[in-house]
Amino acid sequence: MVPIPTINDIRAAHDRIRGVVHRTPVITCESLDRLTGFELYIKCENLQRVGAFKFRGASNIVLGMSDAEAAKGVCTHSSGNHAQALARAALERGIPAWIVMPTSAPSVKRAAVEGYGATVIDCEPTLEARESMASEVLEDTGAIFVHPYDDPRIIAGQGTAAIELLEDAPELDAIIAPVGGGGLMSGTCIAAAALQPGIRLIGAEPEGADDAKQSLDAGEWVPQEGPDTICDGLLTSLGQLTWPILREHLETIVTVSDELVIEAMRLLWMRAKTVVEPSGATPLAAALSAACLLDSGARVGLILSGGNVDLDRLPW
Amino acid sequence: MVPIPTINDIRAAHDRIRGVVHRTPVITCESLDRLTGFELYIKCENLQRVGAFKFRGASNIVLGMSDAEAAKGVCTHSSGNHAQALARAALERGIPAWIVMPTSAPSVKRAAVEGYGATVIDCEPTLEARESMASEVLEDTGAIFVHPYDDPRIIAGQGTAAIELLEDAPELDAIIAPVGGGGLMSGTCIAAAALQPGIRLIGAEPEGADDAKQSLDAGEWVPQEGPDTICDGLLTSLGQLTWPILREHLETIVTVSDELVIEAMRLLWMRAKTVVEPSGATPLAAALSAACLLDSGARVGLILSGGNVDLDRLPW
Repeated sequence: MVPIPTINDIRAAHDRIRGVVHRTPVITCESLDRLTGFELYIKCENLQRVGAFKFRGASNIVLGMSDAEAAKGVCTHSSGNHAQALARAALERGIPAWIVMPTSAPSVKRAAVEGYGATVIDCEPTLEARESMASEVLEDTGAIFVHPYDDPRIIAGQGTAAIELLEDAPELDAIIAPVGGGGLMSGTCIAAAALQPGIRLIGAEPEGADDAKQSLDAGEWVPQEGPDTICDGLLTSLGQLTWPILREHLETIVTVSDELVIEAMRLLWMRAKTVVEPSGATPLAAALSAACLLDSGARVGLILSGGNVDLDRLPW
Repeated sequence: MVPIPTINDIRAAHDRIRGVVHRTPVITCESLDRLTGFELYIKCENLQRVGAFKFRGASNIVLGMSDAEAAKGVCTHSSGNHAQALARAALERGIPAWIVMPTSAPSVKRAAVEGYGATVIDCEPTLEARESMASEVLEDTGAIFVHPYDDPRIIAGQGTAAIELLEDAPELDAIIAPVGGGGLMSGTCIAAAALQPGIRLIGAEPEGADDAKQSLDAGEWVPQEGPDTICDGLLTSLGQLTWPILREHLETIVTVSDELVIEAMRLLWMRAKTVVEPSGATPLAAALSAACLLDSGARVGLILSGGNVDLDRLPW
């Protein structure tokens, strides 16, 4: 049984990654406050290195390895921000990284991973192909597999964003963060519940990938099948480790349509002048839908999870 | 003869507008540093209220008026960021504003000005029509005309951004700012030359509106005729007040193509995740062209002047 990380693990992660990971700003925006009716405190993980919070967890795991472990190198399968995050964290430590990427991944993402010095291994764009190719790589290289979210060291790393958010914006009434595999939301829950008991913890999920909402409603883990959403960072199922954490801590999940996500993305670009990807805009979309959930004037923290978009394929 | 503002005027402006105007962040970006070869310190006036530095000068002039002056209200003609800035500064002080706008102005800009409570007056889209309509409004209302750049109080207000930049990033080797009418660059020159004698002051101008470059080269004021550039904030001629200030202080002007401006804009959006309009991207475009001008590793301040773009009409 893998242990659930504690606030002490998150604090240790924060100490470990300090100086490697950006302390991202918490911004405010009057016009978004007027639109939502809340006082918003917006944690800009879109400004994190590699453009996403994923660099926190990846750095925590890579920097926490013994020299003997680290020397073996790391491996994952991912076409998204985790791939870049792990490649860059490995580069920082000077160890090899093997990233299994589906051939369907955009060439710009592949180039970014290679730019960080990682070896990219092609595979067919199915989960089965990714997993079996990763197994082959692990066997061939002896590298250590790094899961994108279902690992206590990853969860502890992602939770460091909430520590910073609550330092910069104390006495929040609620925090809203996106839920994909649940790594960010799990770390956020553990950190926030420890630092500010009673804070309301709310997940944001696209309607087209609402497995966490369904799991909470059913009281048991429901897998994500056939996701259909613009939020390409939020397609996966919850993990064996993240699901019980979310079940314990989450008050609710607000599901949002892709149309509202795109509107929230536009608002962040145009009003807050900050470039956020669709997945990263889901917390604002949820806040726009949360008038029945939170009092007018509530102090609400939003975690903008990432900012990696292709400017040639914008959704408007 | 209108007096040229001094560093004391800029300091007084800074005290006057404190709390009304955002102290915008100065950001850094490793990947832009690698691309340019400089250490860039990026002053984000795209995050200023109304989305542009123009709110500094407008606030300085409106807050500096006596009660008797202020009661008369203010008037300008503008289709750009100055219109919004003056309307909002008037709203903050609770005085009326009349904004003469050409019928060609985008409806979203008109709506923004009206949203700040100003009265919009239509006119034909020519400079003559704008000026004569503004004269009529001044006669009818007794309002005070506020020039977008050729006024010492406006220049002093715009110079406050450089004070903050040099506080946050001391010992800069150079500052690059956009040159349109010259209000921002003039204020920047006066502030920076006083606070850090010897600092190199460089203007950025689009090739299609290079009157300041031509003026510097000729040693005399050259008007801007038939501007043709995507940088819609940099179309005007230098003023009677801004030209002698720039002649005295500017080392040079780097002119940049619209293609390079668009590339710089993309880079700021994708790498620094910050939304900047074409005019505001000219300093980075100039920095990308400045390898022959500045030493590798030079500490260079860039002033991103604004972030008001229409997401439905992006240049890529």
